[in-house]
Amino acid sequence: MEKIKQLQQDFADFLAKTDFSGQPKELYEPIAYTILQSGKRLRPMLCLLANEMFDGDENEALWPALALETFHNFTLIHDDIMDKAPLRRGKETVYQKWNADIAILSGDAMLAKAFQYALQPKKGAELAKQLGKVAIEICEGQQMDLNFETLGNVTIPEYLEMIRLKTAVLLATALQMGATVAGATNADIQHLYDFGINMGMSFQLQDDILDLYSDVEVFGKRHGGDIADNKKTYLYLKALELASEKDRKRLEYLFNLRIDHDEEEKIEEVQALYDRLHVKEAVEQVMLDFDRKAIESLAAVSLSEEKKKHLRTYAELLSGRKK
Amino acid sequence: MEKIKQLQQDFADFLAKTDFSGQPKELYEPIAYTILQSGKRLRPMLCLLANEMFDGDENEALWPALALETFHNFTLIHDDIMDKAPLRRGKETVYQKWNADIAILSGDAMLAKAFQYALQPKKGAELAKQLGKVAIEICEGQQMDLNFETLGNVTIPEYLEMIRLKTAVLLATALQMGATVAGATNADIQHLYDFGINMGMSFQLQDDILDLYSDVEVFGKRHGGDIADNKKTYLYLKALELASEKDRKRLEYLFNLRIDHDEEEKIEEVQALYDRLHVKEAVEQVMLDFDRKAIESLAAVSLSEEKKKHLRTYAELLSGRKK
Repeated sequence: MEKIKQLQQDFADFLAKTDFSGQPKELYEPIAYTILQSGKRLRPMLCLLANEMFDGDENEALWPALALETFHNFTLIHDDIMDKAPLRRGKETVYQKWNADIAILSGDAMLAKAFQYALQPKKGAELAKQLGKVAIEICEGQQMDLNFETLGNVTIPEYLEMIRLKTAVLLATALQMGATVAGATNADIQHLYDFGINMGMSFQLQDDILDLYSDVEVFGKRHGGDIADNKKTYLYLKALELASEKDRKRLEYLFNLRIDHDEEEKIEEVQALYDRLHVKEAVEQVMLDFDRKAIESLAAVSLSEEKKKHLRTYAELLSGRKK
Repeated sequence: MEKIKQLQQDFADFLAKTDFSGQPKELYEPIAYTILQSGKRLRPMLCLLANEMFDGDENEALWPALALETFHNFTLIHDDIMDKAPLRRGKETVYQKWNADIAILSGDAMLAKAFQYALQPKKGAELAKQLGKVAIEICEGQQMDLNFETLGNVTIPEYLEMIRLKTAVLLATALQMGATVAGATNADIQHLYDFGINMGMSFQLQDDILDLYSDVEVFGKRHGGDIADNKKTYLYLKALELASEKDRKRLEYLFNLRIDHDEEEKIEEVQALYDRLHVKEAVEQVMLDFDRKAIESLAAVSLSEEKKKHLRTYAELLSGRKK
């Protein structure tokens, strides 16, 4: 825990030292506004922890950590335009506070800055290639997600591929970058990458479950928001798979209703249907499967348990399995 | 001329060999649609010509050439969203043919791809750093241009800085990249870069002039479009500087009219005012000054006249001074 807190502080200090100012201010203010908001700094932390595992130089790893956080914030700014989202993390989005043009441009500049940061350390070219690959994958994932909104029949494999591209690959790349900076072997980098993919898949499925089955206060989002928004999450797709013809039709009907319908009533009905079909348990089963694969991937990394301790603890903290 | 045609063909062949396909198709089709449209391929040509001057390996230089063209097309796709432009080069824009979300995302993917291409050759890290710098400068230039639309008083130095960032730096970077791949000295790379800046400034001022003072057929844009759109070009700013108090007020009044005003009448009145103030001649004077500086910069490159021949011919062709 001490090590985790120290790395968090080191990254916070590094961010505080970084100059995000510039002219014209309409371009630079949204960048500082977004990146300096408090956040979990999940991707930088995975990068620093992976680097630390292999005894890498932290001063070098802070650069890809900054690249990852800048890149992640670029995706949020552009996603918020597409979602017309007024708020994020309880604050106005760039799209809302300024406008769509400024959100497009400051996002573009952040993507370019992410590459600049990744190019700073000794292995810069390799890190920038990793960033290029993941950037394109995330665009693919976001486009799949947009397609799903209007697509009638999304399959479970398609949904899994979408969350792999939209969420998991960036966590995996964060670990890959940290291990790359530290000079780990290709085999170990691949094992850590696989760990990141499986952990990311598990996290996303957990998010899908928590959206409906969690204490609103703790999770900080509105209860059943995915159902209200007609989002085709894993829960919904699994329910369709398990449902009788009649239940399936009802579910599809409910997920075609517009938001002016009584939200609470709809969420309640869908949740009752999920419960009757034991959807939550079915999704938890898939989650556990990803968890198991994640554990196997981490076990395959050629380091002592002692060396893997901090990353393992951090992953457990994130999943809520360790307080 | 033979050499220029050959390099153009080589780049066309390289583009034809490049795979722009992928899934989901909504992301990839706009990329192929945009980049495979015919264009002057100005930036790739400057890169290849600079590389050829220093006897560089053309197979290496084709990568930054592709990076530059991909990057340039990314800027067009995103600019067209901001301008709500229905057409470009006589074809529907991505924004119009698909939608703003797809234009944002496919543009983002192209920016990432540009970095991937720049990272391919031996000096990839250096090329990617050059791309990162110019990408941010172009965002700054585009933001300045957006600001000018609503800003009351734009100064001539501000306008020159905007066109430097929005247009000239990418031409300069194209030459810089070609010379970098070829292993030119830092001093020569800097001279070529300066040549590109001055050439770019001259081209943009020429564009401002041609918008009003050219045969519509040849230039392919509508006559006086900048005046109709209330664009604060160099001509307008110079006219404000040269005008009497009364003329200045009239000009400012005309440049605040909305488009529902009689366009032809307005263009005619503004042009008559420009002519009376000899604005065209004043702008041509500034253009010639940039031309002179460009010639000096190219002269400073430590190569024989023979080696510089193709780039010089190409620049003359572009400026219309050689047919």
